[in-house]
Formats: sequence, structure tokens, C-alpha cells
Amino acid sequence: MLIVKKFGGSSVADAECIRRVAGIIADDYSEGHDIVVVLSAQGDTTDDLIAKAGEINEKPSRREMDALLATGEQVSIALMAMALEKMGLPVISLTGRQAGILTNTDYSSARITKVDSERIRMELDRRRIVIVAGFQGTNKYDDITTLGRGGSDTTAVAIASALHADRCQFYKDVLGVYTTDPRKVPGARKLDFITYDEMMELASLGAQVLHNRSVQMAKRYGVALEIRSSFEPRVPGTIVKEVSNMEKTKISGVAKDTDTARIAILGLRDEPGIAFRVFRIISNAKINVDIILQSIGRDNTQDISFTVGKADRETAVAALMEAQDSLGFNKIDVSENIAKVSIVGAGMMSASGIATTMFEALFDAKVNINMISTSEIKISVLVDEKDADRAVAAIHNKFFD
Amino acid sequence: MLIVKKFGGSSVADAECIRRVAGIIADDYSEGHDIVVVLSAQGDTTDDLIAKAGEINEKPSRREMDALLATGEQVSIALMAMALEKMGLPVISLTGRQAGILTNTDYSSARITKVDSERIRMELDRRRIVIVAGFQGTNKYDDITTLGRGGSDTTAVAIASALHADRCQFYKDVLGVYTTDPRKVPGARKLDFITYDEMMELASLGAQVLHNRSVQMAKRYGVALEIRSSFEPRVPGTIVKEVSNMEKTKISGVAKDTDTARIAILGLRDEPGIAFRVFRIISNAKINVDIILQSIGRDNTQDISFTVGKADRETAVAALMEAQDSLGFNKIDVSENIAKVSIVGAGMMSASGIATTMFEALFDAKVNINMISTSEIKISVLVDEKDADRAVAAIHNKFFD
Repeated sequence: MLIVKKFGGSSVADAECIRRVAGIIADDYSEGHDIVVVLSAQGDTTDDLIAKAGEINEKPSRREMDALLATGEQVSIALMAMALEKMGLPVISLTGRQAGILTNTDYSSARITKVDSERIRMELDRRRIVIVAGFQGTNKYDDITTLGRGGSDTTAVAIASALHADRCQFYKDVLGVYTTDPRKVPGARKLDFITYDEMMELASLGAQVLHNRSVQMAKRYGVALEIRSSFEPRVPGTIVKEVSNMEKTKISGVAKDTDTARIAILGLRDEPGIAFRVFRIISNAKINVDIILQSIGRDNTQDISFTVGKADRETAVAALMEAQDSLGFNKIDVSENIAKVSIVGAGMMSASGIATTMFEALFDAKVNINMISTSEIKISVLVDEKDADRAVAAIHNKFFD
Repeated sequence: MLIVKKFGGSSVADAECIRRVAGIIADDYSEGHDIVVVLSAQGDTTDDLIAKAGEINEKPSRREMDALLATGEQVSIALMAMALEKMGLPVISLTGRQAGILTNTDYSSARITKVDSERIRMELDRRRIVIVAGFQGTNKYDDITTLGRGGSDTTAVAIASALHADRCQFYKDVLGVYTTDPRKVPGARKLDFITYDEMMELASLGAQVLHNRSVQMAKRYGVALEIRSSFEPRVPGTIVKEVSNMEKTKISGVAKDTDTARIAILGLRDEPGIAFRVFRIISNAKINVDIILQSIGRDNTQDISFTVGKADRETAVAALMEAQDSLGFNKIDVSENIAKVSIVGAGMMSASGIATTMFEALFDAKVNINMISTSEIKISVLVDEKDADRAVAAIHNKFFD
């Protein structure tokens, strides 16, 4: 089999971690598999580099930031290659560029446009283990780019797709994908299978197992994913693929996301296209919006509320304030002590009563719902942050007990 | 003017140092010059990375070591670019590869084969300050290489040569090249000019101002060098060029080198080609030999002594011991408590009495001479390490007072 394995920053944080991961890689290699490994930067390296830049320039160009940050993964791959060399195995490290990860020119949040896999294939043909730097690529100007959040996961999927790998394995500090957070809810169960869509909803809902973007790419190119534990590398994890087990529970998970802030724009002029103009401003500021609630117009004004990641809150408000005159609103109200609680399940909407059961669980637990959002495979509610854990447990127990 | 400026690791050790260097660069840029800056890794970064590798593999491949170490300079250049951005100046950082530094495949001690300066020229044409990572390049396999000792200096000269730069400036913690170490000998004088050959002898003799290799390259391509102080950037330093001031003192400097070990091979078979065989072994181990002393054969055996850098001592002895049977010697004797003291001056050998004056100074100071070596522009003596400073001062005062 051709296997792509991805290890995150905590898995390669120090020499001991690196040796342990090298052991996992060596085991699979010795079974005759072709192995490509994608690594993140060690532990806090990226944060340390950002801090270093901050001492010099609080707003450096994104091009230079990418050149700086890309060193983190380069250190990881060289050290991992050295650990495998020490075990007597043939191995080679490749930076994003050497691995043929080509991106657009959107520094710090670049998209992969192509994987030119010739070099990787050549190294695999020589029976070498190939260690690739995640999170980074190169653009048409021959500049280093980084892929933004979840970038290393995306690198792994892009390589798995380009190589038609049999499996793309993500090693995490959990055994797989659970029906909800096992550290919080004792009854949480590990799923053997999950669909891409379910996984994406879980990822974007704070389950923090895999970044949405990488799952989306995996779905598009039909890359079979697997979430495994780096501490229990022999235990099968959760497999993410198109057709999930049809006999499973109607919902596959309950997730909580506290990295969310609600922004309410109050007293907007009630005129055609106002929502479009609001969200164009937000999208020009490169901010992703999640739940949107638009009030019905009254007295020629209306309110629009939406949620964004906490890190984007200030940028979003600043962008809107700059356009206050042209949009013509009264004020902006920001709320941070909120959480999004969601249930996810393929075909959930076709099964009646799921939403009712969820709302009933919240009612029983005396949790107030602020906003509701639904999709084909997801129902999310916005609740006060202090109620979030209680809400997750109540919903989980209602569905799984 | 097109100026290449090179700053070493201590000049960019932290945010404050980086800001100071950015100020030097900005001043010259604002005078209308085209500026290319070559940087080393920050402070102890390289040593820290080597230590990190050592925790994992005490003998990693040189390819992976190069991939690891190259990150150090990449961090420096990105941070420097950010500092200049902060000052509102147009700037771009380039890795060795992006700057077109092409090398052979001799990892960890690669030679620059070509500088493809198109990218640098394009950036200069846009009036950007170009910050280039020293010490690194890329080879025909698209792999990262490093240039070994004095690598960043070599990068600077290679770029200056490719761009036909008007000046290649090296910023050090001294005001220029001195007649001897100014921290040790109060009468030491700064030289305004020095020839390449004199500079090379001084560099290889432990004056530690510029690496031999870069001066050699500068001489070959006629690149005008200048040694300046990064603490007194407005003070003219020492210019290194082909024709030095003809009216200067006959000798241009006295230098001490304690990074030297003497290896004596005792009781070698006295047969034709034995010296060749000895030094082929040493050269195959990639070790540079300095002073060589071959005794006259007696009783069918002879002794060969030579000096090497201290770091190469063990490797040299190991390589020789492996060949003990074929070379047929009795034993190897190693001495480390020695120092090489040298005087340098173009046309020195044509002036009579220089050597005599030097030996007289040593005799007066009661310093024993172990070995003597002479070249067109240099006389070196090997003395006990404890006598070295006294020897330097005695010689300097004899010539310059």
C-alpha cells in the first residue's frame, strides 16, 4: 500500500516524540508499504516565530511571515529524517517546494493549485521514506507560501490525492472521531466510519480533529482518510469515506465550538442588497462567516447578526465601522461569551424529529438558544458559553443513551 | 553604487541588533545606492540546531544537516526584511536558492558553481533592498546545500562578483584589519588598505576577520572588499584590493592562530611516495593540512609532522591509524598546546632581513620555535600556546614601534 501519514506539532515536539513517531513509520515501512510522511512544525515553534516577528514588526508583510514560518516545518522534517537514518532506514526530507506543492499567490492562506509529484515518486521508487514539510508551498514567483489554518492536513490530502495513495492517516491524540468530546461526556463512543460531510461539519464545529479544508479536498478527490492515535498506533481509528455504515445511529456526533463571536449590526437601512453589501465587506476582509440571522425589516431598518471566529472579531468590526456611513447602521454589538453546539449526521434532515429531540434535550437542561442554523447534515444552536458543556452532555445522552 | 553588505550572526542576534543593522542599511539605501544584504543565522542558532540534531542522531547525513541548518539564515532574512518594512522601505528576502546560489553536491561544504542573479537584478530594478540568506545554496538535485565554514562571506563575494558590485562590505566587531590583535597589543594599527594575498594569509592565520575562501574568490573575480565596524558604520574600514599602498610598512600584520594541532607520524617506512600516501589519506578525509615538516630519513624510517585545525585532529588520527599497516609507522604523536604565529606582507620575501628580525624578536622574548613555514608573503612559526601572546607582542613591537 501507498500510505500518507500526517503527524501534528505535538507529535514531533521533542527528540523523544520524534523517535516515537519514527518507530511508527519504521513499523509500517518494514511491512513493505510505501510511506510519505507529512509533518507540522515542532510544538510551539510557529508561535515562537510569530512572537519573534512581533518584536520587530507588529504588521509584517505576509510574504516575509511565510518565509519565516516555513522554517518550522523544515526543522521537523530534517530531524525526522535523521531519526529514521539512525534506525538505518532509507529516507529523505523534502520541503513543500521540493515536494512539488504549488500554490496561488495568496500568502499566509495560500491554496494548493497543483502537486507536481515527480520528485516524491522518484524517491518512493528508490524505496525511500519521504518526509514532507506540511503547511507550505511555493508560488509562481518562486516565493514560499504557507497554507494557513489546517495547512499541514491539507498538504497530506493533496499529496495522497496526487499519488493516488491507498490511505491518508492522521495521527492525533485521540483514538478516532467520537460521538462527542470523550473528555467531557463519559458515554462518548468512537466511530468506525464517518462520511466526509459529517466529518466536515464536525471539523468546523470545534471537534478539532481535522480541518474542514482538508476533508473537503479529500471528498473531492476521493481520498480515504483515517484518524488514528499516535499513542496507540496499532489500534484502528475512524475511517472517513464517501459511504458510511448505513446502520449507524442517525446522528454521528455532538460538537461544541467556543471559538466564536457574534456580531450584531443594529439599525441597518432596510434597502435591497444591504445584506450583500455587509457580507462583501466581511469577505473582502478575508473573514469566514458562520451562522447568519437577518431580522425582518421594521421602521425602514433591520438587524443582521452573524458569527465569526474570535480571532476575526476585531477585523470584522473595524471593516464594518469603516463603512458605517455607506451602510447606514446605528451600532454594532459584539458578544463573545457564546458557544455553538451542533449535532451532525448524514441524512439527518430526512429523519423526522431529530431537531425536536435536540431542542427537547436543551429545554430539559434549561439551556437558552440564541440562534439556530441548519444544513442538510447539521443543526447548530448558539448558546451562552457557560451552558455549552451542559448542552453537549444533554444532547449526547438524549441520542446515544 | 551597487553595494553588497554582509552581517554576521552576532550583528543580527536579537530584535535590537536587527533594528540597528536595518538602520545602517536604510542610511545607505537613502543615499541612492542599490543594496544587497547577506546575513548569517542569528547568534547561536546554528549551534542550537546542531545540538538538536545531536539529540536524535550523532551522525546524521550531511544532506539532512544542511536542510536543517539552512533554516537559521532563512529566519534572519525574514526578520531583517520585516525590520526594513517597518521603516517603510521596499525590501524582499531571498533564500540562497531564490537568490540563484547554485552549488555542487558536496553537502555541508558545497562550492558555489554559479550565481544566477536574475531574480536579484529584477528586485534591484524595482528599487527593493534585497536580503539574501548566506551560507546556503541549491544543487542540481534541487536539494539545499550549505557552504561550510565562512560560507556567508563566500555568498557575499559570489553575489558581488555576479552583480559586478562596486563594493562588498563586511561588517565586523572591529574597525578594520589591524597590524595585530588590538585587544592584545596596544600599539596595533588599523590598515587602510591590504592586498588579497595578505588578507588571505591573515584570515588563515587566525586573524578571524574574513574567511580565506571568500578572499580567494574576491581576488579571482576582482571584487573590492571592505571590512567595517557594525558599531561604527560611518567610519571607513580596511579596503582589500589588488594593489595595496606601496609606501606602507614591509609587513602588514602579525597574527596568532591557536586553533591548530600538530600530528607527528613517527617511524614511517622511508620509501618513495610515502608522503604522498600520507597526505592522500588526510585529503580523502577532507582535512586541510597547514605546516608540514618532513624529517630526513634515517635507519630506513622517517618522521612526518603537520598541523591541522583542532576540530580535524581526531578524524585525521583515526584515518591514519586505519592505514597503519600499509603505511608502516610506529606511532602517532599529537600535540594541542601549540599556536601558530605569523607575519604577513606582500613582497616581504624580497626584502631582506624580515625573517631574521622576526626570529630575533622571538629570541629576545625567549620563545622557542617548534616548526617554521614560509611562503611568498608569510612567515609562520609554531610555538607553545602559552608563549603565543608574548610572541605576537614581541614581533609586533619589533616591526611597528
